[in-house]
Amino acid sequence: MPQLVIEGQIVRDNLLQAINRFMEERKLRYSIVDFHLGARNEDPSSVIIDSDIDPEGMDRLSELLKDKGAWLLGREQGNPVLLPSEKDRTVPDNFYSTTHHPTELFLNGKWVPVRDMRMDAVLSVEGGGVVCRKLRDIKKGDLVVCGTRGIRIHPPTEKTRLEEPFAFMGAEVSSERRTDLAARTLAAEMKRIGAAKGKIVFVAGPVLVHTGGGEAFSSLIKKGYVHAFLGNNAIAVHDIEADLYGTSLGVDLQTGLPASGGHKNHMRAINAISKAGSIKEAVEQGVLKSGIMFNLARAGVPFSLAGSIRDDGPLPDTEMDLLKAQENYAALLKGAELVVMLSSMLHSIGAGNMLGSQVKVVCVDINPAVVSKLRDRGSMQTLGIVTDAGLFVKALDENL
Amino acid sequence: MPQLVIEGQIVRDNLLQAINRFMEERKLRYSIVDFHLGARNEDPSSVIIDSDIDPEGMDRLSELLKDKGAWLLGREQGNPVLLPSEKDRTVPDNFYSTTHHPTELFLNGKWVPVRDMRMDAVLSVEGGGVVCRKLRDIKKGDLVVCGTRGIRIHPPTEKTRLEEPFAFMGAEVSSERRTDLAARTLAAEMKRIGAAKGKIVFVAGPVLVHTGGGEAFSSLIKKGYVHAFLGNNAIAVHDIEADLYGTSLGVDLQTGLPASGGHKNHMRAINAISKAGSIKEAVEQGVLKSGIMFNLARAGVPFSLAGSIRDDGPLPDTEMDLLKAQENYAALLKGAELVVMLSSMLHSIGAGNMLGSQVKVVCVDINPAVVSKLRDRGSMQTLGIVTDAGLFVKALDENL
Amino acid sequence: MPQLVIEGQIVRDNLLQAINRFMEERKLRYSIVDFHLGARNEDPSSVIIDSDIDPEGMDRLSELLKDKGAWLLGREQGNPVLLPSEKDRTVPDNFYSTTHHPTELFLNGKWVPVRDMRMDAVLSVEGGGVVCRKLRDIKKGDLVVCGTRGIRIHPPTEKTRLEEPFAFMGAEVSSERRTDLAARTLAAEMKRIGAAKGKIVFVAGPVLVHTGGGEAFSSLIKKGYVHAFLGNNAIAVHDIEADLYGTSLGVDLQTGLPASGGHKNHMRAINAISKAGSIKEAVEQGVLKSGIMFNLARAGVPFSLAGSIRDDGPLPDTEMDLLKAQENYAALLKGAELVVMLSSMLHSIGAGNMLGSQVKVVCVDINPAVVSKLRDRGSMQTLGIVTDAGLFVKALDENL
Amino acid sequence: MPQLVIEGQIVRDNLLQAINRFMEERKLRYSIVDFHLGARNEDPSSVIIDSDIDPEGMDRLSELLKDKGAWLLGREQGNPVLLPSEKDRTVPDNFYSTTHHPTELFLNGKWVPVRDMRMDAVLSVEGGGVVCRKLRDIKKGDLVVCGTRGIRIHPPTEKTRLEEPFAFMGAEVSSERRTDLAARTLAAEMKRIGAAKGKIVFVAGPVLVHTGGGEAFSSLIKKGYVHAFLGNNAIAVHDIEADLYGTSLGVDLQTGLPASGGHKNHMRAINAISKAGSIKEAVEQGVLKSGIMFNLARAGVPFSLAGSIRDDGPLPDTEMDLLKAQENYAALLKGAELVVMLSSMLHSIGAGNMLGSQVKVVCVDINPAVVSKLRDRGSMQTLGIVTDAGLFVKALDENL
Repeated sequence: MPQLVIEGQIVRDNLLQAINRFMEERKLRYSIVDFHLGARNEDPSSVIIDSDIDPEGMDRLSELLKDKGAWLLGREQGNPVLLPSEKDRTVPDNFYSTTHHPTELFLNGKWVPVRDMRMDAVLSVEGGGVVCRKLRDIKKGDLVVCGTRGIRIHPPTEKTRLEEPFAFMGAEVSSERRTDLAARTLAAEMKRIGAAKGKIVFVAGPVLVHTGGGEAFSSLIKKGYVHAFLGNNAIAVHDIEADLYGTSLGVDLQTGLPASGGHKNHMRAINAISKAGSIKEAVEQGVLKSGIMFNLARAGVPFSLAGSIRDDGPLPDTEMDLLKAQENYAALLKGAELVVMLSSMLHSIGAGNMLGSQVKVVCVDINPAVVSKLRDRGSMQTLGIVTDAGLFVKALDENL
Repeated sequence: MPQLVIEGQIVRDNLLQAINRFMEERKLRYSIVDFHLGARNEDPSSVIIDSDIDPEGMDRLSELLKDKGAWLLGREQGNPVLLPSEKDRTVPDNFYSTTHHPTELFLNGKWVPVRDMRMDAVLSVEGGGVVCRKLRDIKKGDLVVCGTRGIRIHPPTEKTRLEEPFAFMGAEVSSERRTDLAARTLAAEMKRIGAAKGKIVFVAGPVLVHTGGGEAFSSLIKKGYVHAFLGNNAIAVHDIEADLYGTSLGVDLQTGLPASGGHKNHMRAINAISKAGSIKEAVEQGVLKSGIMFNLARAGVPFSLAGSIRDDGPLPDTEMDLLKAQENYAALLKGAELVVMLSSMLHSIGAGNMLGSQVKVVCVDINPAVVSKLRDRGSMQTLGIVTDAGLFVKALDENL
Repeated sequence: MPQLVIEGQIVRDNLLQAINRFMEERKLRYSIVDFHLGARNEDPSSVIIDSDIDPEGMDRLSELLKDKGAWLLGREQGNPVLLPSEKDRTVPDNFYSTTHHPTELFLNGKWVPVRDMRMDAVLSVEGGGVVCRKLRDIKKGDLVVCGTRGIRIHPPTEKTRLEEPFAFMGAEVSSERRTDLAARTLAAEMKRIGAAKGKIVFVAGPVLVHTGGGEAFSSLIKKGYVHAFLGNNAIAVHDIEADLYGTSLGVDLQTGLPASGGHKNHMRAINAISKAGSIKEAVEQGVLKSGIMFNLARAGVPFSLAGSIRDDGPLPDTEMDLLKAQENYAALLKGAELVVMLSSMLHSIGAGNMLGSQVKVVCVDINPAVVSKLRDRGSMQTLGIVTDAGLFVKALDENL
Repeated sequence: MPQLVIEGQIVRDNLLQAINRFMEERKLRYSIVDFHLGARNEDPSSVIIDSDIDPEGMDRLSELLKDKGAWLLGREQGNPVLLPSEKDRTVPDNFYSTTHHPTELFLNGKWVPVRDMRMDAVLSVEGGGVVCRKLRDIKKGDLVVCGTRGIRIHPPTEKTRLEEPFAFMGAEVSSERRTDLAARTLAAEMKRIGAAKGKIVFVAGPVLVHTGGGEAFSSLIKKGYVHAFLGNNAIAVHDIEADLYGTSLGVDLQTGLPASGGHKNHMRAINAISKAGSIKEAVEQGVLKSGIMFNLARAGVPFSLAGSIRDDGPLPDTEMDLLKAQENYAALLKGAELVVMLSSMLHSIGAGNMLGSQVKVVCVDINPAVVSKLRDRGSMQTLGIVTDAGLFVKALDENL
């Protein structure tokens, strides 16, 4: 009967349960022969199991363990299988599809870390290294990693899951949590990252402006807590509309009443920026004098606006070629330690796909389904705060 | 061809459209013979119509107009039909079912206002007057108003609909509104009512405590803005739990983390109050020293806790006989000028049913469906604010 | 250094992780000395740990393990602490607050199962046995179990969690699941339980009628799949309104349009039943001829209607004394193997509180928050299906 | 005092109320001098008003009336103001921003209908005619309509609002409606349109596949009720994943359980189509054999997939240049009589922006906020059905 040696965070990641379930489902017999607990909490543990598993089962088990950042040591690990792509934008059928966890490939006798790690991509061996590529970027002849041999991944430890500061948010997404406490905790985390010269990126949708959070968010920019900004056409349009005409979607921000003729203000805002040439030029020409986009431009914070099928206009700054927009997003997210997503499901999922699992993600939305969806799609490190974006950003600003 | 004289707020309430639709649906011919607009905006207008309508149609039209606060003058109005109840808790089949608008009955040649007006009840003539009774309070022999003859009702004018201060909330229920503006406006309205010695009643659910609004709400009580308080067993239990053990549903309110053994704290809170005898006695004995219930008791603000099928315990103060609980609620709501409902669908609907349409109602909930439901069930004067209850009450307190 | 022997479903319930976290949080040193895996999957495993834990820590650890159905064997277990109640409706301060899992007490040298197990209650020793009592039912002098000594609980195994048939629903509550598959699976489970003479109880709210599920639900009753029915006043009123007048909340069920004068139909329905005396009498007198309540009465299925603060009328069958209503619910739920909850948050939580964790619970609601709430409050065995109640019951009926 | 003659659907569109409110807000005095009701229901009515309004007020009133399809006849109407654009993609500051209602411009003494009408665009006079252009399509020198003079618009009459078949859905968006009735009614409307050779377009998101509606939707295609299909990358990917591997997002569609290695199936699906070249080629090569995309391709139904910032892959058929994608959408929507939107907020809003108000729109989503948002953004003719997309399409198919 083959003997398997499994190494990983066996206790923390509950691997015995997963193995037990795996064996039961396949009606395999097994027994635990030995169990070594790591000396310190962060050390890997190992377990030795006897089982009547066959080679195909071992492949499946290996895949399962890899998903959890563990690996089989009791079998010939060997080198990964590398096969060439036969056509641009395609890979061999049994290609390895990536997670968003830090990953290593066993190349030439040692573990080599994968560069540009992201979810739902493939691994391509280039030079002596290995890089994570989107399917559409694969060229005919690229060497693509297939199967699961010679790969190991490192899911986040408890600490990188933000568990310490945000433990109270729990796994369940609920509107029945103390949001003032969440604001205070996020503020403390932002201060800590700021002090350590870490990078904080914000993703936001127009609801931030509609719910009156524009001023508080501008304050965050001025205080230096926004290091890059990702958004859609609409948030920029409505922010600029607020600056130029005092309305948001035609509604007067001071009185809350529809302004006379206000329904065309968002089109007027687009027209004004188009006349100036771009947001930056509008700021330089004194056309735009306040608000989120003004403060981003004045503070020199890089931003990227990505287009969507529903965009009017759009603004000259909005990138309607989404291949380029995805590249812009990825470039601004590079090196982020914390990403805060405010009321924008689509752009949050888009940004989430580009993030390695070591990045802390906080998602604020009044709709609990948005956070659930983000987690469903793999960004398990996401912490959700179900609340009103405008009031939340105010509370955040008061704590910074 | 009969000639109908219709009197009411023809312009403001769009009666011509309603009449036009009514005639079309029944394929009746009609023409407008004359139209008198009231001299001032508040004055009723009248319209004279020729139509081939039959008596049954006139009854239906009369019913339709009554729903809108208008009435037919061009037909014999006569006295209302009064029939005796044949059995306790029952009424004759064609009984008149009330709206929650101020209503008058034509008795002995003059219009007499109905006392204790509420929705989904019946009219009973007693002494020389007329009173609104719940079905279950009707006794055999009571004279019940039947049909629609001799009744006229007065829906709220624009002004009592809070349109001036809250116009910006609009009819649509949405989470994309400025909630800080809503808080500021509600605060101003509360100040105005407070200065005029008007009565403000709050209805609240436990989410107010879970989302951290307890302290701010206590501040509202201390400032004198809470004149009566309606709630369920749970809000009192979790508020007391917060005072005695610093947790809400077992979660530490300072750290947000589950407290060790905290899951039993709400049962301990009930036990502590039961030992003291009641909330009031717990305050007097120094057992309860802070929080919403403490401040209500200390300030002498009357409160009523109504039971529900899900209640643990309950607290000795919670009324589990709902006939009595409904009476308690109705008594505390009497004379209210403004009712603010915080995160409690069931108790909000319960209170809403008891309110005349002249009372201003503001409903705050993170779930837009709650406000929609409240309006669906007839409380059309309700203004909904879709936001986080805890943060909202804080914003409200900061503006008072 | 004390040595702890811990026994339980160590692998399945991930106890090593829990212990590890417990030790870390308290900065305790510990090492695993030995680990015995149970021979078969259902057998308990045991682990022996050396740790510098103190007696207070051992109490806390014991409490933690109990919550998970495990226990410390390496310390003096002894007899439970029993203290008398000093006042009706109260218990000693350190009383044991129950979970809804099957529980045993160590009495006179052996483990005795607790009767009438339910959540958030206390244990009272009477005669030679032990019974679970609601706080309000405790009388002065009753012997109440305090602390956590001598108690062991048995959380559901995987199988009773319905994991096999409903595994696909997963832990996350989402509207993005195949609801036709859920209907098919629930139907199969109902057939299985029906064939084995098991008991199926339904809890339902008025949305079942509004969304057009009344006919399909009546079919379930006729086919013998409804063994008890729990609901509020509103579902009965609207079901009867549908039978008598063809409307639900005044809306014609055939055309979907508001019926002329329809807004008073629910009051007419209450009046009609009040005249007959009760629902059963209305069926016998031929007043009520179809619908859910009719079919329940004709088939002799026991039902209980519990009142709420928002009830109009109510129907003579609706119990407005909620202490009695809770008893009625508990009596009908007794012996249930499966409880299906349809679109009624309040009554679902109410029923959920009364159920032992071995009972399968399926909760159907269009609002994901309802299921999340039910699970938050402890009914972790609940499986949620986020869909339209009317269409779901139709799909269920088609599969039976 | 100037005399205003206002012509339009004064009764149906409640213009007197709007005028009354307008006058009150500006503290203008006015009196109704005469009122002519149109002979038949569809005929315009007119009203003559004396008022102390000034020219600026007349402009505002004119704008207000235009929004409602009415116009001032009592003032010099004259020709529209036409100004040239000074720069590509920009228009003069007081440009006229379009509604989505059919619109006419007063050119050379007669009313000329605007071509390619859509919302939030501008009017450009070219040749002897007038065309609706998106801001970004305006070239320097184009003659743009400014102000509100010489424009009249025609909002939908009651009938084109689908009021007859769908009146029961009402204006309020609620999950408490009979969805089987909605399915039956929509089916009848689709039959009617189909029989009259009208065009029906569907917009759909991936939830349609996740909730199991793929098969029923394929049946609609086969029956000839889908004349064009708009969607995002995800619905095509998950539909193809279902065909090739029997999973949706890695979940087995038969068992509902996660398939082993299933998380990479959506990437495998993209890879398979990329290898074939396109969806059409995959169908021709026998790679793709069932499902929505297969049936669309086989039946020759035109479809357009529009990219988004969150897209993996994407499929070779997905257009990532959103300017082109918007053109594709607009081309397929041209001539549509009915557009049915299934569970896709973004693409529904996108398509909604491109539709004239005479097009019937039905929006099906389990989240009431989606429909509310669609209406908020101007597509007031939208009828919302809050239900489970998968079950709804099944019910729809059963009625066709």
